[in-house]
Amino acid sequence: MATKSMLSSNSSSQINTIGPVFKFGGTSMGTIERIEHVAELCLKLKPSAVVVSAMSGETNRLVSLASEISNRIDVPEYDMLVASGEQVSVSLLSLALRKRGIEPCPMLAPTAGILTDSQFSRASILKVKGDAIKTALEKGQLPIIAGFQGVTEDGRLTSLGRGGSDTSAVAIAAGIGAKECIIYTDVDGVFTTDPRICKDARIIRTINYEEMLEMASQGSKVLHIRSVQLAAKWGIRLVVRNTFSNDEGTEMSTIDSPIEGEVVSGVAATQNEAWIQAGSSKNPKFNLANVFTILAQKGVNVDIITQSEHEGGMKINFTVSQPDAKLAMETLKNEFKDLKLILREDVSKISIVGVGMRTHAGVAARMFQTLAEQNIDILLVTTSEIKVGCLIPREKMNQAVQALHKEFISFSL
Amino acid sequence: MATKSMLSSNSSSQINTIGPVFKFGGTSMGTIERIEHVAELCLKLKPSAVVVSAMSGETNRLVSLASEISNRIDVPEYDMLVASGEQVSVSLLSLALRKRGIEPCPMLAPTAGILTDSQFSRASILKVKGDAIKTALEKGQLPIIAGFQGVTEDGRLTSLGRGGSDTSAVAIAAGIGAKECIIYTDVDGVFTTDPRICKDARIIRTINYEEMLEMASQGSKVLHIRSVQLAAKWGIRLVVRNTFSNDEGTEMSTIDSPIEGEVVSGVAATQNEAWIQAGSSKNPKFNLANVFTILAQKGVNVDIITQSEHEGGMKINFTVSQPDAKLAMETLKNEFKDLKLILREDVSKISIVGVGMRTHAGVAARMFQTLAEQNIDILLVTTSEIKVGCLIPREKMNQAVQALHKEFISFSL
Repeated sequence: MATKSMLSSNSSSQINTIGPVFKFGGTSMGTIERIEHVAELCLKLKPSAVVVSAMSGETNRLVSLASEISNRIDVPEYDMLVASGEQVSVSLLSLALRKRGIEPCPMLAPTAGILTDSQFSRASILKVKGDAIKTALEKGQLPIIAGFQGVTEDGRLTSLGRGGSDTSAVAIAAGIGAKECIIYTDVDGVFTTDPRICKDARIIRTINYEEMLEMASQGSKVLHIRSVQLAAKWGIRLVVRNTFSNDEGTEMSTIDSPIEGEVVSGVAATQNEAWIQAGSSKNPKFNLANVFTILAQKGVNVDIITQSEHEGGMKINFTVSQPDAKLAMETLKNEFKDLKLILREDVSKISIVGVGMRTHAGVAARMFQTLAEQNIDILLVTTSEIKVGCLIPREKMNQAVQALHKEFISFSL
Repeated sequence: MATKSMLSSNSSSQINTIGPVFKFGGTSMGTIERIEHVAELCLKLKPSAVVVSAMSGETNRLVSLASEISNRIDVPEYDMLVASGEQVSVSLLSLALRKRGIEPCPMLAPTAGILTDSQFSRASILKVKGDAIKTALEKGQLPIIAGFQGVTEDGRLTSLGRGGSDTSAVAIAAGIGAKECIIYTDVDGVFTTDPRICKDARIIRTINYEEMLEMASQGSKVLHIRSVQLAAKWGIRLVVRNTFSNDEGTEMSTIDSPIEGEVVSGVAATQNEAWIQAGSSKNPKFNLANVFTILAQKGVNVDIITQSEHEGGMKINFTVSQPDAKLAMETLKNEFKDLKLILREDVSKISIVGVGMRTHAGVAARMFQTLAEQNIDILLVTTSEIKVGCLIPREKMNQAVQALHKEFISFSL
């Protein structure tokens, strides 16, 4: 009864009593045996709420059914279809918990109050109304919530796009005032680089949010990028841990440069890049603002952007993720006449990331030098305060990762 | 525009403009190819709304996943699980319609306003709030609605039990003021008896609602019994038709004895019966009212009931459907001490049905005579104005169907 009255109050000191939100990914929910294991973990570790993904393979199965009929993914029925995968996971985990004497409160997005915009298949969470979840907590129930999905203001189901369940978990933590969100997955944490590419890769124990953001956006697939942004924004302690091991995992923190003298925390690489070159000598409307406004309206995310002169006109180079490449090309073709468009899909982006870069000069130069020694062409460059990224030919990706990891990380051990 | 303004009005003469509700069963939705065929049918025949079941096999797959964890089916997560099957069907048919230029409005139970009680896994529809469906119609959209599911007043998903999609379709027709509901299935209509058991079985072109009720409840699996009750109650013209043929199907009507001189319209048989005998010589609380109130509270549906003296006390015989047998036995064992309980599961019920019986004496006698000639024991008897039903040993079921069909139907051709 004490818990009940504390939870129903809104004073901030009492909100701190809300325990962590757990999130279990598709691999963790992949079989009945694994779901039973997840239920055991919940019984032992007592989260305040659990967010789940679809059983691994299920979303692909559903998407493949849809694609036999139509390639439309910007329509409500597509989101309704894929959302069914999480619904199954929520139900099965709830059954497994009830069997263990825990009363579950199975919740889909409309009940849990996960409001999104109406960009079907790639919706963004606007708000989590935590009321229904809190009511369940007050009743002593454990809310089991479908990740990856939301609901529009007019009641239509949406999906957040791949990996969105991480974001659901963090948004729910924020919505109910939880201070911690633990993402359970099938790896031990965030690695210095992809261990399949580089055998020297090791787990990063503590990583700065900004570094994690760069790692995530640069292709480290452990966490969905938006979940890291939200965790940083809301001050939620985010931890990545392995469902199937006792490893302590990786914890995100706000501390700058956690390990003294370590300039680069990680090497990230991404394969699904596409490089578009667009040039026009005539069209006065063809400028940076117009081009990227139009692409944004179509929901195309652009990464690296460069601009140069082109026969008296303009030339724009940019990269998009490969699934968006065709849409980007068509959009530009329809919008601007006489555009010279080149699409190159055999490229990768490789990045070094680290808050230590802020105080260390010459890191970019060392990266270019390392790539040059390996005879790897640099097609485009992008930099931020804590990252240097290069677009390179895809067949050189593994070679580049290994060389950069050796240069910046293995030697700093 | 004319249609729009007519639909948005509420006057009864204009409500008549609402076309039929179609319902497609699991076999009709069983593959992508079949879903495309269903979309073609909708394009051609222009229903006002479409209700769909899960793809055939899908509900079984989901139930089997659940049963690996737990046998609880009286919990919200069970209903949430099985409801996902219809969600997939709604989504896929919507995609197929949109591809054909029809704008679908995919709807799950909460959006469509299908309110039920909260008897999970066997919920009853209380009401269909047709507002959202009508709004979709006014916008020129075709509502595609998940059958088999509903929502409780406090927003939890429910399922109606097997075959419930027929009931969804009729309730939705009533909710939006449609006059006709066409159930598309994988057979040409309602047969005089099971054609797999009796090769002389033929399609009944017009069947009285009460006859259909008796046929449905006696094991003719073409239509869910509650859908027939609701159609009769609301005066909705109910038609059963084959998705894959041009047969005109079977139409339910209110006309008594549609075919002159035909006393028996059909022979129905059901295999999944269980026979329970309960006797007590001591317990004063053990009486008909108490026994069947307690069983009803547990949601056990009882069919045939007989009562007799038993060693100075009482003996009650009754049948339940086999899946309920264990629950019924346990309930009685817990409630009444010193009860003698016998469960027999190797029984079948066989019934002859026809509105013509009302005016023809001696039909029951002819039935008993026919069974006696076949040396088939009659274990229990149940009668209504338009039906005579007998519980018999299961191994004699096919023999009984063939003999009764020959006696009452084949010869009346």
